[in-house]
Amino acid sequence: MRERFHQGLDELRARLLAMGGMAEQAVERATTAYRNRDLKLCHAVLASENAINAVEREIDELALDLLAMQQPMAVDLRFITAVMKINADLERVGDQAVNIVERVMDMVKAEPVELPIDIPRMASTSAGMIRRALESFVDGKAELAEAVLRMDDVVDRMNDEAYIVLTRRMMEEPRCIPQALDVLVISRNLERVADHAT
Amino acid sequence: MRERFHQGLDELRARLLAMGGMAEQAVERATTAYRNRDLKLCHAVLASENAINAVEREIDELALDLLAMQQPMAVDLRFITAVMKINADLERVGDQAVNIVERVMDMVKAEPVELPIDIPRMASTSAGMIRRALESFVDGKAELAEAVLRMDDVVDRMNDEAYIVLTRRMMEEPRCIPQALDVLVISRNLERVADHAT
Repeated sequence: MRERFHQGLDELRARLLAMGGMAEQAVERATTAYRNRDLKLCHAVLASENAINAVEREIDELALDLLAMQQPMAVDLRFITAVMKINADLERVGDQAVNIVERVMDMVKAEPVELPIDIPRMASTSAGMIRRALESFVDGKAELAEAVLRMDDVVDRMNDEAYIVLTRRMMEEPRCIPQALDVLVISRNLERVADHAT
Repeated sequence: MRERFHQGLDELRARLLAMGGMAEQAVERATTAYRNRDLKLCHAVLASENAINAVEREIDELALDLLAMQQPMAVDLRFITAVMKINADLERVGDQAVNIVERVMDMVKAEPVELPIDIPRMASTSAGMIRRALESFVDGKAELAEAVLRMDDVVDRMNDEAYIVLTRRMMEEPRCIPQALDVLVISRNLERVADHAT
């Protein structure tokens, strides 16, 4: 019984990492779609939402089974309930990727405008935070958790800067407003991805 | 033992409702602060964040104690783990209230601008959703859950409208851009409150 329980915990860990990979990939694809104005990739991100939601439910069910299986020790209880919370966060990271491609699909309707915001860098920082936060949780590496907190500060600062730069640009050149707003929303979505990692 | 467990569940339910009340109040206060440009109320919302975080931790600890206390039945497991997830959502509703007052503190630096966005109505709808979603969960009332989903559509629509109206206004009158952006962000924050309720 105890052995089956531990196999179940390993399985839970593996599935959570897989879920993290899916969420990270959704953010990366949404960013590539932004950079290349790629509608096909936008649709791929929209389609991946169902798969992410399905894996979320599987992880929750497995976690509940493990909680029901035998009297888990306090440390296992904390682990299993933390998995359930992280799982919900990862599902929302997937939602952010969907929000981003919705903005991209709006942007491609208009001529491209050069805006000095490094969305790909924000995105790779946020996606890297998800991976590190998960590794830190699964392997119990505190130093990775600290790195994630530092990266969150970086993303927050980039988001604040984007706000200032885009506001100025909109005032100077009102015809840029719709595209600048799309970029502003994307920047905030990435900032939320980073929050979920934190 | 079983009786103590059930007392614990009642306690958990009561604390979750109290937590919901705190989150709802934070949103309402943030909105009043917006309407009256009231910096004192902004600071009250900022100060309430610590109290909300403290209650969040208490609820989590109580939930873990109950999970550890005896072999709970499947229905209790689902209830307790759902409480932990809702608890995390309510804490984030509190974060949204903080985000709103941060925008309000930015707005009051400039002269007021008349913008045709009904933030108080969005806020009261979102706050009402939190209350109903919690009642629906605690009392198992499915019809309330349906009402919450309908209200979410209303808030989504109001947020989309705000986006369109504010974009147009910014293009017509670029001097309004900073304030219009603040309102846009507040509108999105309220839309996220509604998402957490959903």
